Amino acid sequence: MSFRPLRLIVTPAAILFVALSMAGTLVAQPAPAGKPMIVIHGGAGTILRSRMTPDLERRYRDTLTIAINAGYTVLQSGGSALDAVEAAIRVMEDSPLFNAGKGAVFTHDGTNELDASVMDGLHLRAGAVTGIRHIRNPISLARAVMERSKHVMLAGAGAERFAKELGIDTVPESYFFTQRRWDELQKALRADSVSGGHGTVGCVALDMHGNLAAGTSTGGLTNKRAGRIGDSPVIGAGTYADNGSCGVSATGDGEYFIRATVARTIAALMEYGGLPLQKAADSAIARVGALGGTGGVIALDRHGRVGISFNTEGMYRAYIGEDGKAVVEMYRDEGRGSK
Amino acid sequence: MSFRPLRLIVTPAAILFVALSMAGTLVAQPAPAGKPMIVIHGGAGTILRSRMTPDLERRYRDTLTIAINAGYTVLQSGGSALDAVEAAIRVMEDSPLFNAGKGAVFTHDGTNELDASVMDGLHLRAGAVTGIRHIRNPISLARAVMERSKHVMLAGAGAERFAKELGIDTVPESYFFTQRRWDELQKALRADSVSGGHGTVGCVALDMHGNLAAGTSTGGLTNKRAGRIGDSPVIGAGTYADNGSCGVSATGDGEYFIRATVARTIAALMEYGGLPLQKAADSAIARVGALGGTGGVIALDRHGRVGISFNTEGMYRAYIGEDGKAVVEMYRDEGRGSK
Repeated sequence: MSFRPLRLIVTPAAILFVALSMAGTLVAQPAPAGKPMIVIHGGAGTILRSRMTPDLERRYRDTLTIAINAGYTVLQSGGSALDAVEAAIRVMEDSPLFNAGKGAVFTHDGTNELDASVMDGLHLRAGAVTGIRHIRNPISLARAVMERSKHVMLAGAGAERFAKELGIDTVPESYFFTQRRWDELQKALRADSVSGGHGTVGCVALDMHGNLAAGTSTGGLTNKRAGRIGDSPVIGAGTYADNGSCGVSATGDGEYFIRATVARTIAALMEYGGLPLQKAADSAIARVGALGGTGGVIALDRHGRVGISFNTEGMYRAYIGEDGKAVVEMYRDEGRGSK
Repeated sequence: MSFRPLRLIVTPAAILFVALSMAGTLVAQPAPAGKPMIVIHGGAGTILRSRMTPDLERRYRDTLTIAINAGYTVLQSGGSALDAVEAAIRVMEDSPLFNAGKGAVFTHDGTNELDASVMDGLHLRAGAVTGIRHIRNPISLARAVMERSKHVMLAGAGAERFAKELGIDTVPESYFFTQRRWDELQKALRADSVSGGHGTVGCVALDMHGNLAAGTSTGGLTNKRAGRIGDSPVIGAGTYADNGSCGVSATGDGEYFIRATVARTIAALMEYGGLPLQKAADSAIARVGALGGTGGVIALDRHGRVGISFNTEGMYRAYIGEDGKAVVEMYRDEGRGSK
């Protein structure tokens, strides 16, 4: 196989031009209209056939299918990427299967503290909430922070007071009780371990207007300290979207994802390094791995290309491509992202 | 003036090589040992000669000089960049002049909620705290989160409980009362405005072992909602350090700095885009400006080059270069970063 090498001439003037265009093209960059695309994840971790029952596997696949179709339906009817991201994530937040919303893990204190964020790739708007204890769908509150407050990131009681002012329904803490997560906490307390809940959820969508959006929602780590903030609500770590490059949602050992600024690194590798999306995603996950962390990402670029990368045994994931059919995968050796 | 253009040949193999080296060189990258360097800021905003009295100007210049010398002394005696960053920031936190520690602004509720973060460029370790109400030096608590917890980011009461477990001194809320900041809140309440406290503090240092560190500390915005988190404690927005590229501390309209992932963008423009530090800093501030935000950054690369950029009337700043003499600047038309 032969190819013609691409020759670039880099001059100071060219660097200046690149710097100026980098600054100038950041705002309100619509991509060419086209077919909608959507990709979701339900967390990365030790997802092995040997640990799965047929019934549990069916429940995961069914819920992922319902979630991605909820988002895709929005896109097909001309809806925005933001609406699609919110719709898909709400389905996963309402399921006890994932570590987000209803199925959130417990903190060391036996409470649930939920985090979520969303970003709009057209205007680089963002919203995030952390330490949420009484809101059924943190992703919708993150979106409200983005669209209806002067702030990007709100924590704890202040965020919940904002929710009440907007008339967003609250739920009692008991809503988040599930026996499975409680048992996981007891086990973690006995082992004095802090571990991933394996089930952060996220979505990236490209709508037919050419706009990208990304969102992430989580319960964090089982047995985490009260007040711990992971990567999910951190713009540039767990979530990022820019029509000029890509949208990303991450899941994994949040501390490592913050230190590696995973989501922004993927976009920057495309934007400044010229890498294609999948290579950028693989590079960012290698960065997490080099630090000692595990997890994965889903990503979509403005041309509708899907990037999936993880360094765990598996990642719950699904996407709908040009043919409009949902592809649902869980294990490492399945389809995209397979190793 | 003539120059020889640099020719780069980009092949798929080269892209793969770059991707692999990007992943592989991220951890524990020591820079060549050399002369220590340090740069600090005390916030960007409407800093005008016409609004300054000779006495107030002297107090700012004196405190900036004491702060930078506190950091430089650490570096000169062979101390770490992390120790220098902490030492310089503690001086500014203890002064009522800056919007951090003692001089923190008030929230809408009349409380003080402080944020801080620190990052170590050698191992990409990071620590951050947000919503702190009883800790005199939030930068030291952020460092304790980095070095002595399993987490990177801790919020509110959970962060303060961690401080108590470590025996870190707490102060009563009244410690943070200053008449000037209280009056600013009353004015903001009357105007129903949320505004910058003009005085977030930060420091970036390069030690003689070749390691970079960066830190930032703030009281946030006057009249902010309780629970609002700005860019200062967000790794990749207000603070970033990587021996492979640079260290950065930012100050300004935090919401815009989060959306523009300012600190990580500067590092990425160097790391993947090949821009020199000052151009990378200017590009990131242009990015903030394009979104509608104002503020500034200080930065240091591994070779000890200083980058300063801001789009406001002024920025309190100081640096010590190879000659060991402190240079202190405040206005837009002074020295580095002058427009």
